[in-house]
Amino acid sequence: MKTAIVTIGDEILIGQIVDTNSAWMAHKLTLAGFEVTETQSIGDNAKQIKDTIDCLSGRVDVILMTGGLGPTKDDITKKTLCEYFGTELAFDDSVLENIKNVISSFTSLNELTRNQAYVPKDCVVIQNKVGTAPITWFDYNGKVLVSMPGVPYEMRYVMENEILPRLQAKFDPEAYLKRVFIVRGYTESALAMHLEDFENNLPEGFGLAYLPSPGLVKLRLFVRGEHRLDELDEHVKKLQGLLGEAILAEKDLPAEKLLGQRLFEKGLTLGTAESCTGGNIAHMITSIPGSSNYFKGSVVSYANEEKINILHVAKESLDKFGAVSEAVAIEMAQGAQRILNVDCSIATTGIAGPAGGTEEKPVGTVWICTRYKDKCVAQKYQLGRYRESNIIRASNLGMVQLLDMLG
Amino acid sequence: MKTAIVTIGDEILIGQIVDTNSAWMAHKLTLAGFEVTETQSIGDNAKQIKDTIDCLSGRVDVILMTGGLGPTKDDITKKTLCEYFGTELAFDDSVLENIKNVISSFTSLNELTRNQAYVPKDCVVIQNKVGTAPITWFDYNGKVLVSMPGVPYEMRYVMENEILPRLQAKFDPEAYLKRVFIVRGYTESALAMHLEDFENNLPEGFGLAYLPSPGLVKLRLFVRGEHRLDELDEHVKKLQGLLGEAILAEKDLPAEKLLGQRLFEKGLTLGTAESCTGGNIAHMITSIPGSSNYFKGSVVSYANEEKINILHVAKESLDKFGAVSEAVAIEMAQGAQRILNVDCSIATTGIAGPAGGTEEKPVGTVWICTRYKDKCVAQKYQLGRYRESNIIRASNLGMVQLLDMLG
Repeated sequence: MKTAIVTIGDEILIGQIVDTNSAWMAHKLTLAGFEVTETQSIGDNAKQIKDTIDCLSGRVDVILMTGGLGPTKDDITKKTLCEYFGTELAFDDSVLENIKNVISSFTSLNELTRNQAYVPKDCVVIQNKVGTAPITWFDYNGKVLVSMPGVPYEMRYVMENEILPRLQAKFDPEAYLKRVFIVRGYTESALAMHLEDFENNLPEGFGLAYLPSPGLVKLRLFVRGEHRLDELDEHVKKLQGLLGEAILAEKDLPAEKLLGQRLFEKGLTLGTAESCTGGNIAHMITSIPGSSNYFKGSVVSYANEEKINILHVAKESLDKFGAVSEAVAIEMAQGAQRILNVDCSIATTGIAGPAGGTEEKPVGTVWICTRYKDKCVAQKYQLGRYRESNIIRASNLGMVQLLDMLG
Repeated sequence: MKTAIVTIGDEILIGQIVDTNSAWMAHKLTLAGFEVTETQSIGDNAKQIKDTIDCLSGRVDVILMTGGLGPTKDDITKKTLCEYFGTELAFDDSVLENIKNVISSFTSLNELTRNQAYVPKDCVVIQNKVGTAPITWFDYNGKVLVSMPGVPYEMRYVMENEILPRLQAKFDPEAYLKRVFIVRGYTESALAMHLEDFENNLPEGFGLAYLPSPGLVKLRLFVRGEHRLDELDEHVKKLQGLLGEAILAEKDLPAEKLLGQRLFEKGLTLGTAESCTGGNIAHMITSIPGSSNYFKGSVVSYANEEKINILHVAKESLDKFGAVSEAVAIEMAQGAQRILNVDCSIATTGIAGPAGGTEEKPVGTVWICTRYKDKCVAQKYQLGRYRESNIIRASNLGMVQLLDMLG
């Protein structure tokens, strides 16, 4: 079942907002067995909306549109759909009832909101239980077009509770089976070369996709059809054999969630001592709700003075080896473990760039030390030239290095 | 100049990643005078790529494609463009040289990476100085199609340094004149109501756009055409009169850059003590190159123990008022200033959510204390229900609060 997602709104086209609806919808649709073949963002423009429906109707079975359903003048989706399908707007009392229920709790009904109860005559109207813009569902030539609000929480509610169940009942699509592996220690190209034979010998219908993120590669093995589950499991075993220890996890989770789960399961606490990552590891870890269960704090020691005064790094180590050195990374990790009173620590010191590099220690040189109780690993990484990417990579590598120690 | 953005990659269509590239590109293109009329995401599928170029070539002047340029088998954009434009791949030594320069610092050249140096014969090849996938630029029928990598930092680098300058040189779009104001103390709707008359009386062609970011609103007044500069200045003066002190800056810069510039100009140093922001202020500040000139470090005191042991917050204050309180925020800021030995400090303590709220202190309650030498401001903010947004808002508010004190 081929599906297209269309988001309508000028604010997307001038880059004022990031369209997060499409990814959410695509994820849910994929899991429900629908194949999303394209997504589009277009303006609040009648001709463009009609042209887009024309084009897509030749290629897909289902068109899901969000946006352009607000009560103000610039929202024209409903009117345009009437023109496209040759129908007209009519007042619907049941929609008005629903609108009154929705708004009763927080505001009174004004004229613009009341006008939301005008809906196209020849379509299925689905009540929006969390907002004032009704959902309209058009069946035409064996295809379906649904128009729904673009407000993220409204869209999510109506997709999960109204639209996905109806689409599944109507089309009964084949299940999408997938397994995700988080792989460490390979670049994307090295991993692809390692898996070349495996990939070439995958049966018809199977796919292997690579999604690199700094320091890790996310690998996705997938196929459609419930009846291919055994085959999938068989190939998962082959992959496990080929990758062995390189598999960091078989879950589709970022490093900060994997580390958080591992720490929580083991009842361990964590602290960080960050120089070149500047607090980003702490930030990534605390972006996860509930992280206060295992994360106690961090010392961002951007200046040497802070490394000495707070983390108790020896001035001699700084003088002798420099801030970016194994000795300093180790002392930072020890200091963090002691003064934060934690079971595990991650320490980073490096040259994020663009300035600060030398011949001996070019931009991208990073020492990372991780401690788990009295075990200690210190490792040097040579990253790239770009500050933003170096900060993210060093953060991921630090978390992965600790995950490795935790087993 | 009508422009379309096409992002290529199955990972977008299964909802594995959110496409943030399109919004970033749309924003930059708009500012450069190009009108983005649509964005599309399509799969790594040759027919779909060709059909999309066919369709778009009838509607726009410029097609910017990202993605599908990796070294692995699922990446087919380059090959498909050859088929579409009736050319073939040829090995390019200068691209290989560039690839060697890019990777030399952190890894060795393998065969798949070497193959990145195959490029279409009949196109302009632009070196990618930050990655291994070259950029290809096709001129055809007075139109332009550019294919570039989808890795966000690579895309951003090549857009800013290579593609936008060339597009501007080629098409010379009517200058897009704009003035940006960073406005504090208003919600988006309150600001819109305050500026209603001003907005209604803007001359033909002028626009006013609101971009709310957590804790601030970015206001953009714009018009096309160099000859309207005087008119623009006249309306800028009106806006300045209407907004007065609410204007935090007249530069299109994020708070961490504004604060960094101000600190640097005044020769001041900064440290942070972060609880609910979990290191995000330190991370934002250190994301700016050169921040080591003014930023000395941070204590992320996620647990009470760290507030007491490292920042020397009084246990009595924590017991009597709780961690989220004026007293604790003040003591954290004092502690940070003293132990980090800095001129200025920002301290945050609050309930980011989703758990941890009480009737008295619901999720979103945040105390922020800022110190500048012996001056001290402590303020309570009631933010929203969403963790991610609360962390960013509190971070921005902390930096703005300190900017206010610096004058």
